[in-house]
Amino acid sequence: MLNFQFFMPTRLLFGPGCLARLGDTPHLPRGEKAMILIGSSGAMIANGYLAKVQGLLAERGVRSVVFDKVRPNPESDKVEEAARTCRELGVDFLVGLGGGSTIDTAKAVALLSANPGSYWDYMHGGSGGKQDAQHPALPVVAIPTTAGTGTEADPWTVITKTGSQEKIGFGNDSTFPALSLVDPELMVSLSARQTAFTGMDAFFHAVESYLNTTRSPMNDMLAMEAVSLIGQYLPAAVANGADLEARTAMAWASTAAGICESIGGCISHHSMEHALSAFNPELPHGAGLVMLSIPYFKRLGELAPERFSDLALALGAEEAQDRPESDGPELFLARLAELIQAVGLTDETLSTYGFTPEQADALADNALDNMGKLFDVTPATLTRRDVAAIFRSAISD
Amino acid sequence: MLNFQFFMPTRLLFGPGCLARLGDTPHLPRGEKAMILIGSSGAMIANGYLAKVQGLLAERGVRSVVFDKVRPNPESDKVEEAARTCRELGVDFLVGLGGGSTIDTAKAVALLSANPGSYWDYMHGGSGGKQDAQHPALPVVAIPTTAGTGTEADPWTVITKTGSQEKIGFGNDSTFPALSLVDPELMVSLSARQTAFTGMDAFFHAVESYLNTTRSPMNDMLAMEAVSLIGQYLPAAVANGADLEARTAMAWASTAAGICESIGGCISHHSMEHALSAFNPELPHGAGLVMLSIPYFKRLGELAPERFSDLALALGAEEAQDRPESDGPELFLARLAELIQAVGLTDETLSTYGFTPEQADALADNALDNMGKLFDVTPATLTRRDVAAIFRSAISD
Repeated sequence: MLNFQFFMPTRLLFGPGCLARLGDTPHLPRGEKAMILIGSSGAMIANGYLAKVQGLLAERGVRSVVFDKVRPNPESDKVEEAARTCRELGVDFLVGLGGGSTIDTAKAVALLSANPGSYWDYMHGGSGGKQDAQHPALPVVAIPTTAGTGTEADPWTVITKTGSQEKIGFGNDSTFPALSLVDPELMVSLSARQTAFTGMDAFFHAVESYLNTTRSPMNDMLAMEAVSLIGQYLPAAVANGADLEARTAMAWASTAAGICESIGGCISHHSMEHALSAFNPELPHGAGLVMLSIPYFKRLGELAPERFSDLALALGAEEAQDRPESDGPELFLARLAELIQAVGLTDETLSTYGFTPEQADALADNALDNMGKLFDVTPATLTRRDVAAIFRSAISD
Repeated sequence: MLNFQFFMPTRLLFGPGCLARLGDTPHLPRGEKAMILIGSSGAMIANGYLAKVQGLLAERGVRSVVFDKVRPNPESDKVEEAARTCRELGVDFLVGLGGGSTIDTAKAVALLSANPGSYWDYMHGGSGGKQDAQHPALPVVAIPTTAGTGTEADPWTVITKTGSQEKIGFGNDSTFPALSLVDPELMVSLSARQTAFTGMDAFFHAVESYLNTTRSPMNDMLAMEAVSLIGQYLPAAVANGADLEARTAMAWASTAAGICESIGGCISHHSMEHALSAFNPELPHGAGLVMLSIPYFKRLGELAPERFSDLALALGAEEAQDRPESDGPELFLARLAELIQAVGLTDETLSTYGFTPEQADALADNALDNMGKLFDVTPATLTRRDVAAIFRSAISD
């Protein structure tokens, strides 16, 4: 019988131009001092988004300090540096402006600003100190500029321990953003390659949460919507970044998949990608997911073919309705391969990023040790040998 | 372009048997003293639900006081009486156990327990004092025993001013339940008639929020799911109250429609029913909605036929896909009439409840004066004359 939990307390404001609402929403967190986090690439400065956010906060009487050192696959030392500054200045809330790395860092900083010690004290996987945070995180305002991470609608933050290969997810009730402004106009300047990487991340959030053994009707409907929208609109957003309709559809798909992260969540495909990008922080998360996906879902479909038909159908494979469930994985894999081609990612290879098949066992250990919990909600048991074989296949392909 | 807001911070626990989670969930509001509100009919005592809730709270070290004076179409004097008790005893949180009236009363008491003055000081319609509450409401735990109101997933509470014909809705961020336990097993004992009334209330929440001019994809998908589930399962739940599958489908449909209340919301059909039950508090809310519905949606469909096809389709009218949009209202009205028949409510008449056609103008004034805002989000302008004509037709039929 249907049995589930739903909790997603973030207030979402969505739509082209909605960033302006930062200037008038009654739901801005209270306080006079904010830290705005942005990525180290300079994109938020170059395209004027930082100045716009600073201006809107200033109109509200909020002074802001900028932390501009966030890099892709963000590390714990930056979290600690930013949290020190927040404590020293008495910052009241955080603003994460950028992609998933930036908003995730804002959440981690929000937690550590309100709690003593080092960030890894609060991690429960790997070498984490397994402490429970005694104080809720400071409020976070999330302003995503990519459509992919979904972090604007979930409590999760993924941080790598500096100097290690531990890349671990964390979240509690207080790390949901208090307010998220999802403005597709901020996404039109994203490059085709970044659009494809981030869009495929959203795609796999939806796919994985649909396959997750934790069932809920809300998760199912949001996941199906996201899979369908991404199948339809991601190729268009990659082909023409200025297509605001495609950007808007992708922004909603990403946020919908983010809500799925809050109620269903990823399965072990994501654990395995975390191992890859822990080994090589230069590997974009979405690229890692794409390169793992064919061997991963092939193996999973052999062991647990249920529900793949629905995913194939959401990607437009109408024949899935007339074929047995056991054909679902094959139909899904064909559509997935077409999507990867349509968004221009067929030429990505893990060997380009320095991976060798000999690393497969070490990667399997890393995935199981650091993000083992996602294997528990995967609809089939993947042995260490299975996991290593998937890595080996993904690296060799 | 798509532009919307989403905010529904209630933690929902859903599923047969989930009431037991009251004994172990880490998300029970903090505190040692609770007030449990139940209806005056004695049903919560007779079927053992009250004792069960008291026992589970006691296991958590929470002492509880019971307020058992809630009647259908609850009144402000009871809210004030219960709030006085809460203040005197230092109650930490409220538990609403029952139908919509009980949970709505719990929300109103939660607000007034934390704020001075009388409840009507905080109402913004009718003769309300139009004050803003300075303090958030106490936390509310909602345990619905009917599938209809959706109040477990929205901030709204509808209270009638004692001694008047003002029945007004209120809600703010703090009146969302902190925790809602939606357990279909608590619904199997509901009579066929109550099942039909409450189920049709959920149905109209979904229909109205789908037609509401405030558009959002989340609202649309939840509303379509609820309309479809209610069309399929409400007749079964009415025919056999012990059918746990039908009860579970209805419980989720009602909660889904409740989430719609939080993001889309009702239109003027609900304003008009509030006028009816303000004139006669013995009229069940769902019965009033049903008796208004045919003339209301007939007139609305003449003025604004858009989206009725989708509703007809969700009710199984597959021909809606091949017919022009202008045929939507007719197709919907035919399916609606069938549903009303299938749940055994064709014999209800407003004249049985003492209404006469001569009251139509006074009822129109009441609906527009007390709940005028819902006319603003109705997809066509209904004049005072339209509204009176709908009342006249509903009373004469």
